[in-house]
Amino acid sequence: MNLPTNYNEKTMRTVKSTDPSALSYEEAFATTVRQVNEALEHYLSSDYFAELNGFGLFHGRDHRTVEGPTRLWESLRYSTLGGGKRIRPVLAIQVCLACGGRLEDVLPTACAIELVHAQSLIHDDLPCMDDDDLRRGQPTLHKAFEESTAVLAGDALLALAFGLVARETPQDGKVSAQALLQVIAEFSSVSSVQGLVNGQFVDIYYEGRSFGPDVLEYIHTYKTGALFTFSATAGARLAGAPTPLIEGLCAFGQKLGLAFQIVDDLLDIQSASEAMGKTVGKDLVQQKATYPAHFGVEASRSKVKELVEESEALLNRMQALYGQLDVRSLRILTDFICHRMH
Amino acid sequence: MNLPTNYNEKTMRTVKSTDPSALSYEEAFATTVRQVNEALEHYLSSDYFAELNGFGLFHGRDHRTVEGPTRLWESLRYSTLGGGKRIRPVLAIQVCLACGGRLEDVLPTACAIELVHAQSLIHDDLPCMDDDDLRRGQPTLHKAFEESTAVLAGDALLALAFGLVARETPQDGKVSAQALLQVIAEFSSVSSVQGLVNGQFVDIYYEGRSFGPDVLEYIHTYKTGALFTFSATAGARLAGAPTPLIEGLCAFGQKLGLAFQIVDDLLDIQSASEAMGKTVGKDLVQQKATYPAHFGVEASRSKVKELVEESEALLNRMQALYGQLDVRSLRILTDFICHRMH
Repeated sequence: MNLPTNYNEKTMRTVKSTDPSALSYEEAFATTVRQVNEALEHYLSSDYFAELNGFGLFHGRDHRTVEGPTRLWESLRYSTLGGGKRIRPVLAIQVCLACGGRLEDVLPTACAIELVHAQSLIHDDLPCMDDDDLRRGQPTLHKAFEESTAVLAGDALLALAFGLVARETPQDGKVSAQALLQVIAEFSSVSSVQGLVNGQFVDIYYEGRSFGPDVLEYIHTYKTGALFTFSATAGARLAGAPTPLIEGLCAFGQKLGLAFQIVDDLLDIQSASEAMGKTVGKDLVQQKATYPAHFGVEASRSKVKELVEESEALLNRMQALYGQLDVRSLRILTDFICHRMH
Repeated sequence: MNLPTNYNEKTMRTVKSTDPSALSYEEAFATTVRQVNEALEHYLSSDYFAELNGFGLFHGRDHRTVEGPTRLWESLRYSTLGGGKRIRPVLAIQVCLACGGRLEDVLPTACAIELVHAQSLIHDDLPCMDDDDLRRGQPTLHKAFEESTAVLAGDALLALAFGLVARETPQDGKVSAQALLQVIAEFSSVSSVQGLVNGQFVDIYYEGRSFGPDVLEYIHTYKTGALFTFSATAGARLAGAPTPLIEGLCAFGQKLGLAFQIVDDLLDIQSASEAMGKTVGKDLVQQKATYPAHFGVEASRSKVKELVEESEALLNRMQALYGQLDVRSLRILTDFICHRMH
């Protein structure tokens, strides 16, 4: 893959020459999104899958003589390359660049984060979980293919993700192997029992049960928050940022994740209201654990506003401490995430 | 965890003082199996899960105030600590020790391999896959818990595995961080599209379809072979073995994996014949892709014999090249795997 060497400068020039507040997400991050999509296209190509056969288990024999695998590759591509805003990878990349890091050091991890995100959607959509037929207007994977394929494709994406970080991050001395191992260890936690899995488990567990705000906080912190938190943390770590800055950006990612989830739930109510002509969203009907369902729409909006202010304050504080930190793109990202609700 | 420092010598002494061919698997590897089980018990404890919360997402708040997660931890323990011969971790550990490596360097990876093996069993047992109600005489996870829990527990184990390798392998200079990254990259391949997932996918794909020996070879190479191959390769890599030795042990693991699978299928026929009073096993009835179903029982037995001879020859050749390589335990392991069928 060829990456433009002057990527960082280019993006920054775009941002400099325009009033940041006037830029949409699509305008501000078009280049980053395209680069993530191109990298994902490469990592989910049959050429790349062939490369992964590190042990030479087939001793040079052509895989394509066996018919089945092609359908598996197709399912991975269907569920991962079919659109999406790539917010998590964009967050990881923009944090890394803001800290003075290189695109090529964070791109494999950014793509890996998107693979794990895609995996969690595939498995959450399964009949035994949320039982969803549509995702981004397209049939969910178990509908477009088979349920068994959906289980296996999710497993493949999850395991592939760790390989991307370990194998594709340049080992030219900029990112130490030790830092990479720490990134992998944290990635493992947020993809399993301190993140996506326990978050989704508790979400399902409390369906139809009564619960307090502690449960709601738990679900949001892990199910959505953990991967946002990891994206920001990994971006900073892969840029070689000093520990206090990594910690600050970790807290920033956490706030952004919570804001994203609340806005998502608010949007769900809004679109359901528009479609059904009444003010009840699907998640409210299902008694899902959401902020609007628990605290009401107004309190949820206030919470988002509070999170935006806290995020801004965090960014300002970090910039005061680290003059070289360029937080403009992170402000645009925060703006986008929190002001989608119109 | 406290590991005995003289583990290597102790095992070797046992082997030295006894005629290897007279030892059963249980006798020869009791210590290793116990150490794997103790380590797994630790890695699946609530203490360890708490440790994994690297980001401090809950800022010191007690997780246990939320009711759900405990049930998730229980499901992980149910499916992983409930017995099993631990053949894959034993293979990884014995290869590492045979190459002069240290137990503590291979133990986290050995446990990680068992977690991925457990994950593959949980997901393969699901109703949309092989739809099995029993595993080792106990209800499968989706029967003992819920189907959603089985999907999530599998995901958790798979993601946890990579964290174990990255986080728990001692970083005291014996295993280089680069070697560890390579182990993780290879682990990722065999746990996804060059191993368990494509193997299982093709196995399901050809159910009820006609296929030739190339498909059978494909399924065995990946579904069973890849994790055996990885176990042996990782063991050698973590011992710091030279490349030709790693390659030789990789080939050894591959042969062992194929032998294991054929013997398993022969045992399945044997036990079904005994139970049903006729010579047809479940996999034969289902037209599963097995050696005995395709080539007959006698040809399958010959194939196992051939693989044993090839493995022995490989071990002899490697020992001739590397005088310090102690292959006695690997011979016992080969013996056990190939002569279970009586």
